[in-house]
Amino acid sequence: MQRHLISAADLTRDDAVLILDTAEEMARVADRPIKKLPTLRGRTVVNLFFEDSTRTRISFEAAAKRLSADVINFSAKGSSVSKGESLKDTALTLEAMGADAVVIRHHASGAPYRLANSGWIDGAVVNAGDGTHEHPTQALLDAFTMRRRLVGRDAGLGKDLAGRRITIVGDVLHSRVARSNVLLLHTLGAEVTLVAPPTLVPVGVESWPCEVSYDLDAVLPKSDAVMMLRVQRERMNAAFFPTEREYARRYGLDGDRMAKMPEHSVVMHPGPMNRGMEITAEVADSPRCTAVEQVANGVSIRMAVLYLLLGGSEPAVTTNTARTEENK
Amino acid sequence: MQRHLISAADLTRDDAVLILDTAEEMARVADRPIKKLPTLRGRTVVNLFFEDSTRTRISFEAAAKRLSADVINFSAKGSSVSKGESLKDTALTLEAMGADAVVIRHHASGAPYRLANSGWIDGAVVNAGDGTHEHPTQALLDAFTMRRRLVGRDAGLGKDLAGRRITIVGDVLHSRVARSNVLLLHTLGAEVTLVAPPTLVPVGVESWPCEVSYDLDAVLPKSDAVMMLRVQRERMNAAFFPTEREYARRYGLDGDRMAKMPEHSVVMHPGPMNRGMEITAEVADSPRCTAVEQVANGVSIRMAVLYLLLGGSEPAVTTNTARTEENK
Amino acid sequence: MQRHLISAADLTRDDAVLILDTAEEMARVADRPIKKLPTLRGRTVVNLFFEDSTRTRISFEAAAKRLSADVINFSAKGSSVSKGESLKDTALTLEAMGADAVVIRHHASGAPYRLANSGWIDGAVVNAGDGTHEHPTQALLDAFTMRRRLVGRDAGLGKDLAGRRITIVGDVLHSRVARSNVLLLHTLGAEVTLVAPPTLVPVGVESWPCEVSYDLDAVLPKSDAVMMLRVQRERMNAAFFPTEREYARRYGLDGDRMAKMPEHSVVMHPGPMNRGMEITAEVADSPRCTAVEQVANGVSIRMAVLYLLLGGSEPAVTTNTARTEENK
Repeated sequence: MQRHLISAADLTRDDAVLILDTAEEMARVADRPIKKLPTLRGRTVVNLFFEDSTRTRISFEAAAKRLSADVINFSAKGSSVSKGESLKDTALTLEAMGADAVVIRHHASGAPYRLANSGWIDGAVVNAGDGTHEHPTQALLDAFTMRRRLVGRDAGLGKDLAGRRITIVGDVLHSRVARSNVLLLHTLGAEVTLVAPPTLVPVGVESWPCEVSYDLDAVLPKSDAVMMLRVQRERMNAAFFPTEREYARRYGLDGDRMAKMPEHSVVMHPGPMNRGMEITAEVADSPRCTAVEQVANGVSIRMAVLYLLLGGSEPAVTTNTARTEENK
Repeated sequence: MQRHLISAADLTRDDAVLILDTAEEMARVADRPIKKLPTLRGRTVVNLFFEDSTRTRISFEAAAKRLSADVINFSAKGSSVSKGESLKDTALTLEAMGADAVVIRHHASGAPYRLANSGWIDGAVVNAGDGTHEHPTQALLDAFTMRRRLVGRDAGLGKDLAGRRITIVGDVLHSRVARSNVLLLHTLGAEVTLVAPPTLVPVGVESWPCEVSYDLDAVLPKSDAVMMLRVQRERMNAAFFPTEREYARRYGLDGDRMAKMPEHSVVMHPGPMNRGMEITAEVADSPRCTAVEQVANGVSIRMAVLYLLLGGSEPAVTTNTARTEENK
Repeated sequence: MQRHLISAADLTRDDAVLILDTAEEMARVADRPIKKLPTLRGRTVVNLFFEDSTRTRISFEAAAKRLSADVINFSAKGSSVSKGESLKDTALTLEAMGADAVVIRHHASGAPYRLANSGWIDGAVVNAGDGTHEHPTQALLDAFTMRRRLVGRDAGLGKDLAGRRITIVGDVLHSRVARSNVLLLHTLGAEVTLVAPPTLVPVGVESWPCEVSYDLDAVLPKSDAVMMLRVQRERMNAAFFPTEREYARRYGLDGDRMAKMPEHSVVMHPGPMNRGMEITAEVADSPRCTAVEQVANGVSIRMAVLYLLLGGSEPAVTTNTARTEENK
């Protein structure tokens, strides 16, 4: 595996399987009396957030703390960054302060790539969402959730998501979640279909390893999982849609539509949900909807990623490690 | 005891005594060389603050850290909550991330109740102030402070606040502190008198277990403790009072008024104080004023509450636990 | 050493040497497998910031966490402080909550002094920058950086900065960094020259223990270290300079100017740098520029200061302590 996690495209199938399998082990830590591993004690994880995203920030924070790392939150708002400091100087500063990992969220697509590939820092860089580009840990937690729901926890990955049919619905154009999912799911052998309003399909989608459809109702019956993207209301201006209601009618998921899906299939949402917009409350609260599991799985995935990038050669969770922890 | 702490009204006399006694043990931790207990290691406490309240937030944060819990601060400002996420989805998210306790501060009265009683989360909910409704840990720390000052640290509670006369002065209408104190002090057997401008007495106060007076000077000589409420300047508009000076003259506590109180009596204030408004500097700085002790006691009370809600069956502070801690 | 660190002027030569030597030990912690010392476990460090300064805040936070202290960040924005609470009541509150050290950043010169000398708190007060007055840990980390670069890590301080010639360039008038450096470097026996536009030299500079020059090019060839101050653009109004370009031409450091400096000399900058303003990218990125080392050294210096103020009599880093840590 590489030293950073910038794009789902950088992950080989083996990398992805290793992360998912490690996350499965991490998920078990939550069942212990003391829900903590000593693995990253003395390591410092910096959450460098140029955009507000409380959910993602606290997911990484919880993951790092469960591994006993020290966490420093660096919100770029009101900092010297907003006084004109370059990304380079911010990076050099964090490196000098001893950051072992920098989790970066940035409004500009490509910022995490620059941070990782400039030689400015030795620590690991984890992309926590950059512009409309990528959000690889989201794709990993989505894959982890599908694997658990569609195949079971003990399945070797070789046999699981391969051949599964995943449908992603909504504003694909502005969605880093969609892009990362398409890339990762393709690597894992799944077949992805995008369903979006024609104005919200990215230029160049022909080169993506997936199908595109404009007819949600036709695709639902052959989907193992349907992933509803969050509508960014601020981007939904009149140019695209006359009304929110019209969007919900054509691309929202309600109980009637869900009834067309195969019985074993699941509904996913990265959250936060706009109930009544891209998803009705009925669907959001149905046992088929994995939104809440996705959040829990997000912590396990981020523990796995931080562990694999920082933990080096020690086993993540062994009887031995566990014993050391108990003695602490 | 219940699984949550939402209202002072939910506490039986036994519950309250248990919390106060546990807080007494917690206060001793501050005297140790290492001011920390391992009791909540591996547990996660989330401070979910929809309103700024640095003092309350850091009091809970200090309490949780002294018990070795991990603390995650979630300020709702700028988060997806402000993008329209429902309290329900926020709750489900925190639950999924493994929050063992959610300390919630909310501008809407009743929000903590909804959070606790909706089945959305398994973790404990602690009300850190909701609208003009309640602030139960404030009432507990006030009772703890009175018990220490009026009765002594070793007194069994059965014999202590029963029969004591407590006067609460100021804007009762908007005060969650007043309401929680009336409820808890009644449970503990004290006799409470409210003194407030007529326009700042809540409708329905007749059903509260207390007296109401409009004459501060008449009440002072028979008070064991006088609790001055903070004036919320923004609420003190011309409708209520012509000037701040007029308020101070009629309902403020100065040295002359304090001289009318019995010698053993104390002056309390939840802070932050408006010196010169509801309390003069002379009174605020006198040894009778317990404002600073209240802050210190707040940490002990919050340690006790978190311990009792999360700690389960283990003893809080025993020689044994202490030894384990020393070996860590 | 005193119980607080308010001004570089309060440090005797012995105090300063002790801090620098302790920081040298602290710097070695970064090379350990577990980059953490147990020294301040159970102690609470509060970062009380009345001004945004992410860099300084996270440097103190990293330092405190590396010593195993609990850290509570208290940003005065939006807190009761902004609702009119006095510094006194804030101080009493932090003291009551058990703060062992208060690291204070304040826009008003003298606030840390008041906090430390009022008897309000027992804990140690560390000045993290007050108005245009002082920033003593910055001066210490600068001295530490010069000692390492100009003399070597193992030099006893008695023989090192004495007689070295240090030049400080830029807006001295508004710079707490300049003032603290002049005071500390004088204590350490160095010879300091200030170079500034005439309008940006403080009144009363005659009483400072340093020279003043208006001719940068004349001073450079005899400088062992040149410290470039950050230009505060908001203060650079037309009254002082017609254009930023004019400032850069007369007081900025570029490659040509750096070539006039002795071969062994170094260029320093407290960060964040305005590349193209007071320093060109060429200089900023040259191996002579210590800006990044200064950041790293800042963590070591702050560890040393917190350790010396809070740690009491135990040795900071001994084989013994190390062993205890390993066993934890």
